[in-house]
Amino acid sequence: MATNIKAINVKLAYEKLLEIRDKTNLGSDQVLQQLESVYDVSQRYLRECKTGGLLSKVKSKNYFLFENNGKFSRPVNSGLYSGGIKQIGDFFSGILHNDLSMMSEEKITSACYVVAMSYCAAIDIIKKKADKKTPGTYFEVLVGHIYSRKLGLLPSKQVEVLNLDMDNAKLPTDFIFDLGKKKPKFHVPVKTSTRERVIQVWAHQRVLDGVYGVGRFLGTLVCMAETKLSTDTGTVVEICLPIQWQLYQMYIAQMKRIYYLDMPAKYEMLNNTFPKIPVRPFGQFFKDIDSLVAGSSD
Amino acid sequence: MATNIKAINVKLAYEKLLEIRDKTNLGSDQVLQQLESVYDVSQRYLRECKTGGLLSKVKSKNYFLFENNGKFSRPVNSGLYSGGIKQIGDFFSGILHNDLSMMSEEKITSACYVVAMSYCAAIDIIKKKADKKTPGTYFEVLVGHIYSRKLGLLPSKQVEVLNLDMDNAKLPTDFIFDLGKKKPKFHVPVKTSTRERVIQVWAHQRVLDGVYGVGRFLGTLVCMAETKLSTDTGTVVEICLPIQWQLYQMYIAQMKRIYYLDMPAKYEMLNNTFPKIPVRPFGQFFKDIDSLVAGSSD
Repeated sequence: MATNIKAINVKLAYEKLLEIRDKTNLGSDQVLQQLESVYDVSQRYLRECKTGGLLSKVKSKNYFLFENNGKFSRPVNSGLYSGGIKQIGDFFSGILHNDLSMMSEEKITSACYVVAMSYCAAIDIIKKKADKKTPGTYFEVLVGHIYSRKLGLLPSKQVEVLNLDMDNAKLPTDFIFDLGKKKPKFHVPVKTSTRERVIQVWAHQRVLDGVYGVGRFLGTLVCMAETKLSTDTGTVVEICLPIQWQLYQMYIAQMKRIYYLDMPAKYEMLNNTFPKIPVRPFGQFFKDIDSLVAGSSD
Repeated sequence: MATNIKAINVKLAYEKLLEIRDKTNLGSDQVLQQLESVYDVSQRYLRECKTGGLLSKVKSKNYFLFENNGKFSRPVNSGLYSGGIKQIGDFFSGILHNDLSMMSEEKITSACYVVAMSYCAAIDIIKKKADKKTPGTYFEVLVGHIYSRKLGLLPSKQVEVLNLDMDNAKLPTDFIFDLGKKKPKFHVPVKTSTRERVIQVWAHQRVLDGVYGVGRFLGTLVCMAETKLSTDTGTVVEICLPIQWQLYQMYIAQMKRIYYLDMPAKYEMLNNTFPKIPVRPFGQFFKDIDSLVAGSSD
């Protein structure tokens, strides 16, 4: 019964997060406060759950899952989770004061992983049906808030396409952060995982490049993980399509950065090959962003 | 009980269709014969179901649905269905002999609609969970078979990307029909409905254009319908994004044709505006194809 109440608290905290986002704005202190509340109640729920180790087919990474009443969470990266959970206080305080300089990139990545994963793992178990939308929306609010604070402005979710006679045409997009005249604009798709749908990201970037000119929108995709759990065998794999990403990067558009919380090794290798795609742990965003804004970064 | 046996027959006929496709090939007479069997058993099942009228918010089109044991099919276009059902014999015989010249475009479209819809409507009711994959695969086999026969060759589902040092790179695609040297190749995505995923179609076309050169692959998307049933209110709407299609056509790649079985009015209008996208009833494929192959069609 106590577990049930804790489950309800997770749902309520999430609903309140969306309410506060709509009432204030995505970058407000109140949203940050509520992100912290969602994290807290999710942790309280997860502490009531059992954990179980998984057979990891992913080199150098171990995974476990949370379990309650025969229902399972998605796989959780053990190293990131145990490392990140000690950093939560510093992380939220750093976001609040817009200063994460005292944290290493690794610590930021793992703390942000724990914050993202806690709600997702809890809701995986709590929800009656397989629910992809709620974790996706939550992760979008989290990443959107972090970008809003760091860049000091709010995003839009569509851009106008002023195309001669088509003056009412708007393109719905993921987040667009417009830094103003003679500065770059950020195109920020946010996905818990990508799979075959990822071609949309490059295609949207292509439309933005076509409408506004190449180089005006910096595409920075933010992803959580590419893990897949086979429930029959209890094994975890990563689903990656690096060659297809290279084809998209060559033939559709050029993404400036792809950030991961749980970085897949096959995508990390895209940093060291040619054509190169800069795929980085998300913690590096805080170090990258100034040079990206200044236009001095690759 | 009789209904249950008829439901099982629909499932078995579909499974046999996939088996035959794998054992023979997508364009074989055996596949056509089995498509006819799937149609027959689906009809026998649907004749056991009740039908119910729907409130259509789509101008000049009426819809109904099949119902059994409180489970519903997708919306069925009344005009296409009642018109097409009289043409089934001619349609299958025309496909077999590769000669549909005695049928009007309208009759071909409506007959093909009934063949596609019969299985989809039956399986909508029979399947326990919402099942998008089975209808999608069935429709892909149907359209793939029709293209194979008409073009007299079999498709592949990936193309090699011979890109200097990346000589093992392959791009998975929808159907590719390669007519050989100095002739066009057809890129044929097949979807029961498109919604927001459709940008993939233009993005794949863009990659093909980039790898092989613009104009080498003619993109012809084949769709069933864009209807959506609101089960609460029993109303049918069409979900269309014509301005976004225009942006994709301008900024990503140029699709040569988009064929529909149940043509949405908002997409039909794209034939008469600028930039123009040729969106046609599927029956017109049989009239278009010779001039497309000869390269003499817009």
